[in-house]
Amino acid sequence: MKIAFIGLGNMGGPMALNLHKAGHAVTAFDLNKDACAKVQAEGVAVAASAQDAVQGAEAIVTMLPASQHVEGLFLGNGNGPGLLASIAKGALVIDSSTIAAATSQKVAKAAEAAGIAFIDAPVSGGTGGAIAGTLTFMVGGSDAHLERARPLLEKMGANIFHAGSVGAGQTAKICNNMLLGILMVGTSEAIALGVANGLDPKVLSEIMRRSSGGNWALEKYNPFPGVHENAPASKGYAGGFGTDLMLKDLGLAQENAMATKASTPLGGLARAIYAAHSIAGHGGEDFSSVIKMLQKKG
Amino acid sequence: MKIAFIGLGNMGGPMALNLHKAGHAVTAFDLNKDACAKVQAEGVAVAASAQDAVQGAEAIVTMLPASQHVEGLFLGNGNGPGLLASIAKGALVIDSSTIAAATSQKVAKAAEAAGIAFIDAPVSGGTGGAIAGTLTFMVGGSDAHLERARPLLEKMGANIFHAGSVGAGQTAKICNNMLLGILMVGTSEAIALGVANGLDPKVLSEIMRRSSGGNWALEKYNPFPGVHENAPASKGYAGGFGTDLMLKDLGLAQENAMATKASTPLGGLARAIYAAHSIAGHGGEDFSSVIKMLQKKG
Amino acid sequence: MKIAFIGLGNMGGPMALNLHKAGHAVTAFDLNKDACAKVQAEGVAVAASAQDAVQGAEAIVTMLPASQHVEGLFLGNGNGPGLLASIAKGALVIDSSTIAAATSQKVAKAAEAAGIAFIDAPVSGGTGGAIAGTLTFMVGGSDAHLERARPLLEKMGANIFHAGSVGAGQTAKICNNMLLGILMVGTSEAIALGVANGLDPKVLSEIMRRSSGGNWALEKYNPFPGVHENAPASKGYAGGFGTDLMLKDLGLAQENAMATKASTPLGGLARAIYAAHSIAGHGGEDFSSVIKMLQKKG
Amino acid sequence: MKIAFIGLGNMGGPMALNLHKAGHAVTAFDLNKDACAKVQAEGVAVAASAQDAVQGAEAIVTMLPASQHVEGLFLGNGNGPGLLASIAKGALVIDSSTIAAATSQKVAKAAEAAGIAFIDAPVSGGTGGAIAGTLTFMVGGSDAHLERARPLLEKMGANIFHAGSVGAGQTAKICNNMLLGILMVGTSEAIALGVANGLDPKVLSEIMRRSSGGNWALEKYNPFPGVHENAPASKGYAGGFGTDLMLKDLGLAQENAMATKASTPLGGLARAIYAAHSIAGHGGEDFSSVIKMLQKKG
Repeated sequence: MKIAFIGLGNMGGPMALNLHKAGHAVTAFDLNKDACAKVQAEGVAVAASAQDAVQGAEAIVTMLPASQHVEGLFLGNGNGPGLLASIAKGALVIDSSTIAAATSQKVAKAAEAAGIAFIDAPVSGGTGGAIAGTLTFMVGGSDAHLERARPLLEKMGANIFHAGSVGAGQTAKICNNMLLGILMVGTSEAIALGVANGLDPKVLSEIMRRSSGGNWALEKYNPFPGVHENAPASKGYAGGFGTDLMLKDLGLAQENAMATKASTPLGGLARAIYAAHSIAGHGGEDFSSVIKMLQKKG
Repeated sequence: MKIAFIGLGNMGGPMALNLHKAGHAVTAFDLNKDACAKVQAEGVAVAASAQDAVQGAEAIVTMLPASQHVEGLFLGNGNGPGLLASIAKGALVIDSSTIAAATSQKVAKAAEAAGIAFIDAPVSGGTGGAIAGTLTFMVGGSDAHLERARPLLEKMGANIFHAGSVGAGQTAKICNNMLLGILMVGTSEAIALGVANGLDPKVLSEIMRRSSGGNWALEKYNPFPGVHENAPASKGYAGGFGTDLMLKDLGLAQENAMATKASTPLGGLARAIYAAHSIAGHGGEDFSSVIKMLQKKG
Repeated sequence: MKIAFIGLGNMGGPMALNLHKAGHAVTAFDLNKDACAKVQAEGVAVAASAQDAVQGAEAIVTMLPASQHVEGLFLGNGNGPGLLASIAKGALVIDSSTIAAATSQKVAKAAEAAGIAFIDAPVSGGTGGAIAGTLTFMVGGSDAHLERARPLLEKMGANIFHAGSVGAGQTAKICNNMLLGILMVGTSEAIALGVANGLDPKVLSEIMRRSSGGNWALEKYNPFPGVHENAPASKGYAGGFGTDLMLKDLGLAQENAMATKASTPLGGLARAIYAAHSIAGHGGEDFSSVIKMLQKKG
Repeated sequence: MKIAFIGLGNMGGPMALNLHKAGHAVTAFDLNKDACAKVQAEGVAVAASAQDAVQGAEAIVTMLPASQHVEGLFLGNGNGPGLLASIAKGALVIDSSTIAAATSQKVAKAAEAAGIAFIDAPVSGGTGGAIAGTLTFMVGGSDAHLERARPLLEKMGANIFHAGSVGAGQTAKICNNMLLGILMVGTSEAIALGVANGLDPKVLSEIMRRSSGGNWALEKYNPFPGVHENAPASKGYAGGFGTDLMLKDLGLAQENAMATKASTPLGGLARAIYAAHSIAGHGGEDFSSVIKMLQKKG
């Protein structure tokens, strides 16, 4: 299939490569020349502009940083028409950016009006999952559109969840990540409290993992150094999912909560905690480093 | 073995029965006559006082409501000497009450001074687990004492965790329950936010369960009615673990945090949320009913 | 002076009247016909459209509900050009709406490009202050623009603060209202805690008012019924500043915090508390009714 | 009047001196010899023990660190009888320590049983107020007892509030200090948010001080350096009221909230925030330094 891929960052680059390796005719574009050069070196065709990239494409995959980039790309930003004007009628857009659900819905509406299919398909799984092709996709859109997208998604990911209609993929992702942000702070508090009482963090973590406190962080991503050998906590909080990225997702959750007048006391507090952690200089470390804020130094 | 069992409430009663059924010579006592009558009807010997119950006992198991009851029972409360004076040298005390770790340590110190072994062994698993003999024990005390206790604990429970020295069982339990209290509010927020956006609570719960938001509540105890058929949420929030019991455990966690100068922002906030929920009249409902505070009514 | 006034709600209506009574030639407009009729009955000229209202106006005052209305009005919303195209070069726009600082800045930039002066001048003081002409204005914009606006502002308000450059009025207002939202919850917690201990709410309030807990709520707006005779709390929480309006302002504060990566733990939590209070059905009551969430019933 | 004064720390020392200077016959005691020497150098009689100090005293004033010290002193701690046994029938005890209301009530009950009058009279105003004799007393106890104490309190303080029956002084103080702890964090958040938006902290502080965000911190104790010349913030956060002292008071408030099942979401969160601030190494700085946690560095 002829595919345009726009946005070749740490996530988008490897995703584009996986589509290329699967035999699809991928034409890629990114404003960053280095990012383009990287995928070109692996044999992917690179276009001179987003407009060029989508010429004749049956599917367009986008992986951009934030709502305004997606809206600006597809709908235009005052300096000219948006990309929708260049996309062929009947083509399918798969937007894998993590953005506001309202933006997904706005773009989808314009796309459908132009005869273009649109699904939101944000991912979880990190750069490791992007490279290995084991990402989780949370998809919003019609059944029919999802079925058209599925063969492509399967080349880039291992799990595909259909969350609901357009925007539902975004909502599912920010609900999940808000919960993850809460779990990580809560787990850090529990371990720090135990350690302050003289308990062994490994023993306590194992007890809670097998009890009603059990959660993903205790399973795979313990914030205390040395409990999980391969977790960022055991590698100086390098790699993983950065504090500032978690902060962005918790911000999207709060935006959504405001728009729907929802009450998210722990989600809002978790955002403030990661913000304070970022202010203290830990924005680039893995988000599990938030335990430092709660843990007395030796 | 000759065993005294003191405290025959919803948890203690069935636990005493399980020891009796396993062939041990149990003598039971409770200030509440009805509670005594219930186990007597099942063939358990009942004593006229705690002092009588412990005469000649090799092991004493206690299951009392709060710190002051345990301290008052064993150390006395100004109206006379504590029960330690009546217990035979060399006997083993297993206290399964959920109380402050500091109280466990205080009683243990007095017990050891009197030549009596002591472990704290609070439980999780609820009345269902108490009846079925599938409780989880979190034990604080020496290896030797735990090994003496193990044959008895195995008649009442399915999992036995050794958390550390005396008091560590209590600390592990309140760390776990603090985390559970946080998980339940956080999971409720995430589901309520998704539902406010039009998502199906079952679909969203399943996506998060299999993603990085995964936790015990999503696994077994979903707070949204109808997602887990057997969860309290699907039965009008009846049964289960009451809001006021969660409030008590979160209070113990906060007491501990104050004593150790620990910082538990989400744990403290979760306590305030369950307190407000109790003030609003939901103290007797299962703690997962906290979702009502966050969920718009149809 | 020839003035256009757009937005004639509970605040805007009385403000327009005060300018009219001061002898200015006011031409008013609102999409709501009843709002127009009300000021017309008091002798104010009413235009058929916003475009008509601004014809020949030297100053334009706007009082609209939210960011999107202000942006849509001045910059257009896809259905036609914005109002800036109809405003005379050299005129002065005073926007008294409470909106995002970023929106004020966006509109101001377009206005200045068109040769039109712009200041943001959100108010506090409620409908009572609007009628009495005793509002507080928090102004963002240049000294020169503020001095041009001052004679008009003085007809509508009693205090005029110059917060800084464009957008600073909005920021000052949401900082103040975020703090107010926090003060009210905090004061409610303190009084409820005292009352739970048997203290008299009047006595406790007076002690704190004269001590380091002193704040505006204890001074003028006590949330406990009967302490301040004229506060909404003593009138069934009717009138005053509604929970949902406070919720809107706390949402603007959170939006701002996200845009600047600021950490506002109490501000974010206060927002969640008012949201839960609104969900429980108190959105239309005065915001001091939040004490109900914390106060045990008789 | 013959007065015993026990507890000669930074607060108690100057308070004892003020009674001495007013012409009373003060006999002082502290476990710390240096503290005794200090007041002795000013002409105050020093006793060899608390028992000696109270011989023949008509009034006993105590100023001790925490609940356990007050309870241990008056009621004994297992190593001997308490001080009540040495105090003359009919004498008056004024306890100015900041402790749990429940402890005040327990000691008062034992005192009254021994024919000794008791009031709790915790103070605010800091070491400056103690030296200047301008403290604020919050008194719990009967009218009659307070009137007996008043002539002495007036030598040490400028404001005397009667909060209610025994323990009410303690409750009023922790309610006030909980609110103060909240005000300071909330004010810090508001200023930090404004500064992140480019506002001048002085200008913003002045606007809020005169608006509905007005509170004691904006009046006298601004947390931003340079706004109030004499506030700790302008002196490197030295002097003032330490973070760890605020943490202690917020802990007492939480203990009280647990005992009464009260909900104090902002109070609990404020405690966790000061705890994290202390963990980060700021326990000895003035509590207004909490703004550092929320404020981006240059």
